[in-house]
Amino acid sequence: MAAVTELGTALRALVDASVSTAVGPEELRAAAAEARRATALLEADRRPPGRLPPLDDPVAFRRVYSPVTGVGSAVAPPLTLRGDPAGGVRAEATLGLLYEGPPGYLHGGMSGLLMDHLLGAAAIHAGLWGMTAHLELDYRGPVPLGVPLVLRGWVERNAGRRTDVAGSIAAADAPDRVLVQATGIFVTPRAEKMDAYFATVTDAAGRHTPPGRPTDATAVQP
Amino acid sequence: MAAVTELGTALRALVDASVSTAVGPEELRAAAAEARRATALLEADRRPPGRLPPLDDPVAFRRVYSPVTGVGSAVAPPLTLRGDPAGGVRAEATLGLLYEGPPGYLHGGMSGLLMDHLLGAAAIHAGLWGMTAHLELDYRGPVPLGVPLVLRGWVERNAGRRTDVAGSIAAADAPDRVLVQATGIFVTPRAEKMDAYFATVTDAAGRHTPPGRPTDATAVQP
Repeated sequence: MAAVTELGTALRALVDASVSTAVGPEELRAAAAEARRATALLEADRRPPGRLPPLDDPVAFRRVYSPVTGVGSAVAPPLTLRGDPAGGVRAEATLGLLYEGPPGYLHGGMSGLLMDHLLGAAAIHAGLWGMTAHLELDYRGPVPLGVPLVLRGWVERNAGRRTDVAGSIAAADAPDRVLVQATGIFVTPRAEKMDAYFATVTDAAGRHTPPGRPTDATAVQP
Repeated sequence: MAAVTELGTALRALVDASVSTAVGPEELRAAAAEARRATALLEADRRPPGRLPPLDDPVAFRRVYSPVTGVGSAVAPPLTLRGDPAGGVRAEATLGLLYEGPPGYLHGGMSGLLMDHLLGAAAIHAGLWGMTAHLELDYRGPVPLGVPLVLRGWVERNAGRRTDVAGSIAAADAPDRVLVQATGIFVTPRAEKMDAYFATVTDAAGRHTPPGRPTDATAVQP
């Protein structure tokens, strides 16, 4: 895990530098050459499609390359999800230019990405894994980049395979002034759908390991 | 533009390799060291906050580091938007493990990111720029990774500052079987809000250049 985290950290710094740099074409090309050398090292061996990375535990929802929480992912902030004493889950993050939409503000769709993840994590945290069936977002104000944010997700109700969840994004220094409000419906697929969707998924040892009801909650830090 | 695109291309290949590699900790650490060298090159000069990159034209909505369409962005697929003979805009893309949610499928929130962008671009394409006020997504089936997708966005109606837009994601080989259906409301902020939101935004030459009604549509390729 340490090496995956080290590479993820290095890549996030590189990607962040790449969108905020003011160096000239020569330095950009030199950086591209370094990046290609790194790629060649990594491409020496690739996992086959459908085989999860050794560090993943899909039953416990630990995914090291998640585009939102993955410590190994260059695109993930990454968010660290924690149980919220007020209920559900919460995360804090300060987002940079990588996620920019209108100048100075978070891309509206990035709010959608983050909220979908928080809502899904809130369901998992309550032992109610499902896939997104419906997501709805109200944008009450632009989300500023470069300032600490608080993201929350919580379960509103559950009935059988359907879980209704909600969430919000606010600036950490004004947590009650909601900038983005989200609601979602997450549905646990029927057994036959699960079989169809995830028939070929294996862990690194080759064992069939579809996602499912969490046995513990390692995706959420204590 | 060529050097920014070269670096963006190299970074996308690196990030893609980083989430699918099966090399050991030693190679991961060596790749991280290369990435840190590239970062050092780029960090030699950074643009100040609020100053756009020289290649950006916010009036024409050309953004080289957009997280969805930016040729210089490591996280953007990047999508190339085109005018759709059927109306609105469309893009094609094949998405990899970087965007994974459930094993083998697109992260539900990534569908939100892509749809928000397509809907916003459809408004711009119709000369109706606005910021996302509401976004709603219905997920009818999981979106597979590694297969060509078709993404569409179109304007449903416009009334003053409000534009209603819609969009869809489907597999390219089954374009009529919609996997994700989206609707959105985009609103052009009032003049006083525009001033408040974008007061300090300048182009690379230091001129105040808030986003606004497009003068042309370079964000959409012919």
